[in-house]
Amino acid sequence: MSFQNPVFIPGPTNIPESLRKACDMPTIDHRSPLFGQILHPARDGVRTVLKSSSAEVFIFPATGTGGWETALTNCLSAGDKILAARNGMFSHRWIDMCQRHGLDVQVVETAWGQGLPADRYEEILTADKGHEIKAVLATHNETATGVKSDIAAVRRALDAAGHPALLFVDGVSSIGSMDFRFDEWGVDVAVTGSQKGFMLPAGLAIVGFSAKAMEATKTGTLPRTFYDVHDMAKGYAANAYPYTPAVGLMNGLNEACTMLLNEGLENVFARHTRIAEGVRKAVVAWGLELCAVSPEVYSDTVSAIRTPEGFNATDIVTHAANTYGVAFGVGLGEVAGKVFRIGHLGSLTDVMTLSGIATAEMCMADLGLEITLGSGVAAAQEYYRANPAAALKAAA
Amino acid sequence: MSFQNPVFIPGPTNIPESLRKACDMPTIDHRSPLFGQILHPARDGVRTVLKSSSAEVFIFPATGTGGWETALTNCLSAGDKILAARNGMFSHRWIDMCQRHGLDVQVVETAWGQGLPADRYEEILTADKGHEIKAVLATHNETATGVKSDIAAVRRALDAAGHPALLFVDGVSSIGSMDFRFDEWGVDVAVTGSQKGFMLPAGLAIVGFSAKAMEATKTGTLPRTFYDVHDMAKGYAANAYPYTPAVGLMNGLNEACTMLLNEGLENVFARHTRIAEGVRKAVVAWGLELCAVSPEVYSDTVSAIRTPEGFNATDIVTHAANTYGVAFGVGLGEVAGKVFRIGHLGSLTDVMTLSGIATAEMCMADLGLEITLGSGVAAAQEYYRANPAAALKAAA
Amino acid sequence: MSFQNPVFIPGPTNIPESLRKACDMPTIDHRSPLFGQILHPARDGVRTVLKSSSAEVFIFPATGTGGWETALTNCLSAGDKILAARNGMFSHRWIDMCQRHGLDVQVVETAWGQGLPADRYEEILTADKGHEIKAVLATHNETATGVKSDIAAVRRALDAAGHPALLFVDGVSSIGSMDFRFDEWGVDVAVTGSQKGFMLPAGLAIVGFSAKAMEATKTGTLPRTFYDVHDMAKGYAANAYPYTPAVGLMNGLNEACTMLLNEGLENVFARHTRIAEGVRKAVVAWGLELCAVSPEVYSDTVSAIRTPEGFNATDIVTHAANTYGVAFGVGLGEVAGKVFRIGHLGSLTDVMTLSGIATAEMCMADLGLEITLGSGVAAAQEYYRANPAAALKAAA
Amino acid sequence: MSFQNPVFIPGPTNIPESLRKACDMPTIDHRSPLFGQILHPARDGVRTVLKSSSAEVFIFPATGTGGWETALTNCLSAGDKILAARNGMFSHRWIDMCQRHGLDVQVVETAWGQGLPADRYEEILTADKGHEIKAVLATHNETATGVKSDIAAVRRALDAAGHPALLFVDGVSSIGSMDFRFDEWGVDVAVTGSQKGFMLPAGLAIVGFSAKAMEATKTGTLPRTFYDVHDMAKGYAANAYPYTPAVGLMNGLNEACTMLLNEGLENVFARHTRIAEGVRKAVVAWGLELCAVSPEVYSDTVSAIRTPEGFNATDIVTHAANTYGVAFGVGLGEVAGKVFRIGHLGSLTDVMTLSGIATAEMCMADLGLEITLGSGVAAAQEYYRANPAAALKAAA
Repeated sequence: MSFQNPVFIPGPTNIPESLRKACDMPTIDHRSPLFGQILHPARDGVRTVLKSSSAEVFIFPATGTGGWETALTNCLSAGDKILAARNGMFSHRWIDMCQRHGLDVQVVETAWGQGLPADRYEEILTADKGHEIKAVLATHNETATGVKSDIAAVRRALDAAGHPALLFVDGVSSIGSMDFRFDEWGVDVAVTGSQKGFMLPAGLAIVGFSAKAMEATKTGTLPRTFYDVHDMAKGYAANAYPYTPAVGLMNGLNEACTMLLNEGLENVFARHTRIAEGVRKAVVAWGLELCAVSPEVYSDTVSAIRTPEGFNATDIVTHAANTYGVAFGVGLGEVAGKVFRIGHLGSLTDVMTLSGIATAEMCMADLGLEITLGSGVAAAQEYYRANPAAALKAAA
Repeated sequence: MSFQNPVFIPGPTNIPESLRKACDMPTIDHRSPLFGQILHPARDGVRTVLKSSSAEVFIFPATGTGGWETALTNCLSAGDKILAARNGMFSHRWIDMCQRHGLDVQVVETAWGQGLPADRYEEILTADKGHEIKAVLATHNETATGVKSDIAAVRRALDAAGHPALLFVDGVSSIGSMDFRFDEWGVDVAVTGSQKGFMLPAGLAIVGFSAKAMEATKTGTLPRTFYDVHDMAKGYAANAYPYTPAVGLMNGLNEACTMLLNEGLENVFARHTRIAEGVRKAVVAWGLELCAVSPEVYSDTVSAIRTPEGFNATDIVTHAANTYGVAFGVGLGEVAGKVFRIGHLGSLTDVMTLSGIATAEMCMADLGLEITLGSGVAAAQEYYRANPAAALKAAA
Repeated sequence: MSFQNPVFIPGPTNIPESLRKACDMPTIDHRSPLFGQILHPARDGVRTVLKSSSAEVFIFPATGTGGWETALTNCLSAGDKILAARNGMFSHRWIDMCQRHGLDVQVVETAWGQGLPADRYEEILTADKGHEIKAVLATHNETATGVKSDIAAVRRALDAAGHPALLFVDGVSSIGSMDFRFDEWGVDVAVTGSQKGFMLPAGLAIVGFSAKAMEATKTGTLPRTFYDVHDMAKGYAANAYPYTPAVGLMNGLNEACTMLLNEGLENVFARHTRIAEGVRKAVVAWGLELCAVSPEVYSDTVSAIRTPEGFNATDIVTHAANTYGVAFGVGLGEVAGKVFRIGHLGSLTDVMTLSGIATAEMCMADLGLEITLGSGVAAAQEYYRANPAAALKAAA
Repeated sequence: MSFQNPVFIPGPTNIPESLRKACDMPTIDHRSPLFGQILHPARDGVRTVLKSSSAEVFIFPATGTGGWETALTNCLSAGDKILAARNGMFSHRWIDMCQRHGLDVQVVETAWGQGLPADRYEEILTADKGHEIKAVLATHNETATGVKSDIAAVRRALDAAGHPALLFVDGVSSIGSMDFRFDEWGVDVAVTGSQKGFMLPAGLAIVGFSAKAMEATKTGTLPRTFYDVHDMAKGYAANAYPYTPAVGLMNGLNEACTMLLNEGLENVFARHTRIAEGVRKAVVAWGLELCAVSPEVYSDTVSAIRTPEGFNATDIVTHAANTYGVAFGVGLGEVAGKVFRIGHLGSLTDVMTLSGIATAEMCMADLGLEITLGSGVAAAQEYYRANPAAALKAAA
């Protein structure tokens, strides 16, 4: 596996130079004021990236999975009822976590490739007259299927039903790459990690809590210590932390927010759409289809590409790694062997993306699929040429 | 705060060059075999550092606090009885965590400055004829007081009582710096982090489980997902991880183990003793006393130094940071304001240590304490000269 | 200019991770034995890369231009007669340097695109009965035209003429990438730099001197101090340097030699040929021609590609930089505006190369050249698939 | 040799974090406009550090020795008469270089430890009615003896004699650390390197030329190519370079200038004086003497310390390296074995300096000198406490 080639996994992403350097920090005293100069701007930056004016941002030395656990254990109690749809591996895992923590999940089974069924949510919430459902889970971007869901529609479902349940959103593979509106969508807990839109190494769980979610923490009785947001908040108020923070990564997060906000969030999102669209043009040129069933659910951070019946899509990933030193993503769960995934998030250029497309073509040809070499590349080139990057940013 | 001066906090430590570089890694595919080439040697290295032949080693993207939670939530069930002594801030916090997770802790209050009372443990365990106590907690090195406890004695207490309770040991500020014998002491769960003896940035919880502890995980019913060792073990068996690993830090851990084992564990421990002894000579020269009550409990990784009555020891730490750009540790909890701490673990040389001692002298003089400038330095110089370093290692 | 895209200039190359880290070194005492542990293995490594058993290797904190000056000023005296062919910008510059230093150069004008005319050399040398010609200059690889010359043939010319002139070879853009045989070819001074085949930042002039060249330094009277090889040799003998060495770069050079020799020089050369051949297949697919007139002079480190009459080839380079953030090389001197250059040396993978080819296609199309998008990519893909990399090496 | 200890050689210095990161740069195209964004600010920054409004600044991938050669070969012709004093190893070497390049040096032998004899210069220049002397050499800070000379006095000597000779100043170990006034002192060529006051790795020769020196380049006929300032100037005018620049180091230089100018040059100088004075207090406490004969010539960047008759001062340096992993400087030339040197330039804190002083004490005691351990440390502590640092700057 050559470090020279870009990676095309759906996170961790390729890390920009400047972020690698921001993370690679000598030890400072995390109980000194210097730490506050990293902590507070990082939290402010995340809040702005979330498009929130008031979310409480907490940063744990953990991963997105820990962020899920933070949402659940702080706001809920054993036996609480939860509503969630399962439309991919990551929504599946969050549901599984709920069950392990003694929560009672009403699962809406949804085809892998489809978005969250806001209409079904509305029916169920409307039917829940007693408001027993305490929280609704929504995976904004299903990394396993390359499917984006409409969180605004979920909010509308809650509102239409007049239901007070909390809205927990997994934005791990969307926040910082695709439009996310914490305040406008009425999100109560947003969860992400450092290794996706923030383009950092894995190691931070990043969560935003609404005032309503903070209120819920007062009654939630699930056991928690490491992920206790009260301990965290008390620490923050004193420029500190309840235990040892991952200072370098937080310094990187601060820098990542600065990069994203300097570029402008809408520009960041447009950049992701542009890169993704090139990949999608290539998929069409190859005569293949995305796992995502329709354009409105196409993810701008990852494309899961279906291969023909009888072909093991995972072979592409293995072959790309072994023969070309390139990392793609395998299919997971229900779509294992049926799709391979091209991650296209973070600091990826059109030029880098073309090398990923070219590699996929070589792999498919090597493995006997009917592919015209250069066809996907040409389609993407055409698109990129016709839609030039707004501005070349030194992504470093 | 100058990055040029060493830090003298009791972790995170000064990070050797080679470890900074090992951690600063480009993104690799953590689902590729390359990850296994980091994961398995890192786990093997940790096991050897623990002096164990068979401990199951788990590495979480978290901190030592998460390691505590891993021990509790995997092996225990709500209402389980726990035996623990409180002799400092870190033992206090672990007890607090037990209580938050619904465990029933029998706390043996112990003076801050003393080691764990193995004899009281033995009495209590002997009295527990029904074996209701499921686990005994032991903080090997109380970072708050600079006190090392005798874990072998705790094991003897368990054995003398013929008690089957699990032995959980917090080795956060001892493992990799001071002698730790997982197998010989019959430790069931050992907990540490990346940022102490392993000299890395914070961000990894590192735990070792005995076969008996692994057996206990089958019955432990406390809710857990992020810290579930079964998920982790299943992942490891497939060269993988249940979520996204902190690959760079794990690469650093692998390298850190190689460094420690190449030096030889006994040499590493002797090096820490030598450095610590210089600091202790300085304390004597200053006419001050350690918080640790007697030589057999002196920690080789951190010294908590009592200042005279009426003097706020925390002022030394603040003054050192503001005036000399040097980080010492403040007193915590019961000894807040009464002690300041000099961390002397990890890759610290005699020369660096002398600069810390000299700084402490300047601070004390600046703040009006009766201190002969150069006195502590001279005492440490005398000791270091008389006890030369076994060998100069390029700690990088 | 994005740091994320590879560069396709004919040096400095993309720098492998491990070499960046080897160069990024804290200060050591360059008068201590530790320096010798870098210096001597670096010199030995270079000697092996030169395929020499006895060349004296000198490493200056300078560039290849300084290496040229080292060859001239150490071995020659004002007024000495020199034989050289001009077939590109770099041979031109070396000739110019000779003239500035008072040497009398007999220039064999050679078409840019052709190799060195060994037959003309032989005629001239044979005619020089008085052996007034003191040195023959030979540019192994003309970076400006992408032309490789046959140094063995130049040696045969010298031998056929029974001429004792020294043979100075500019191997700046060949050594470490293309076959170079110091001993077998009877090279007297070989010149290179750190930023080409050694894949390092610019900053080192690296030269090898034969015993005959060392002998010539005793009579050469051109003024020199910085580049004096006797001062350097005296320094080396004492593990030292006549002034302050560029220690980090030399550490990188040592590591680079280890990388190259671990891979095996023949494998390194084959790897360069493979990468270059993919580029050449693309050029054919585009319907374009190389500046190099025939296959036997095709360079494996850089291709200079002729664009159609009336088209300014430099526009491709400007457009690539401005629109796609990719660096190609412009045409220089006689071929300015007529060619653009794709550098393909150092740690470049097939995957990276495809992105450069794809970018060139987009630029040519954007600028109105008749190019079928994807055509060059497909031709290169076909070649790379049919000729798989011998082994994937972690180029880091 | 541990990378953890600071170095106390008189350059290369300890490198601040931010400068290491600035130098560790991926490859950019040095023929692209991006290079201009590094080159021009770096040159402007150097000019400001020189306290000049109009000096032409040239930056070569070389060292200070190359800077000397640049001064000589661009402005002078073989046989030109030069006036220079020899009061240490570095003035000696510059004189030697003149002689190798065919210049006719009138050497004023001066005791090692004394400053340049401006009065003798005046006598000689006054006597030179025919103005045959073309240049006067002046070593601002003799790194070998720790002696600072009065360049303003040398200028006054020239003026008093009404002599038009060029004034070449070696500021290698002064510029960026001690007050240097290019314009006010009428300096014609100032020479320095990257590895002293600019705190970078070695690898850049940095020179400033006055208009008068630039004029002289038109008539100077010494052969030169690599160091030709006209080629360099022509390159700069096109955002370019006559050969491959050391881009990373130049990026570091740009950042170093920003650091120095943000701190304020007078603050930088005061900081060096403060650090140096602590070392000098220690020397007095030890009962030793500096090589520098009187306070007005004490260097603020390096102290050369005389050891008692019959003692080999070099043993201290060897012992410090072998036993404590600390680098001091040996005596050179006439004072070899008679002095050892403590470098105290660049980003060195009082705390770091105390560790150097403490180490020197241990070494002297180990080697049998009559030294009271802690005595020098105490004297320096006293001084540093009484003269606090103006402000703590994060030197990174």
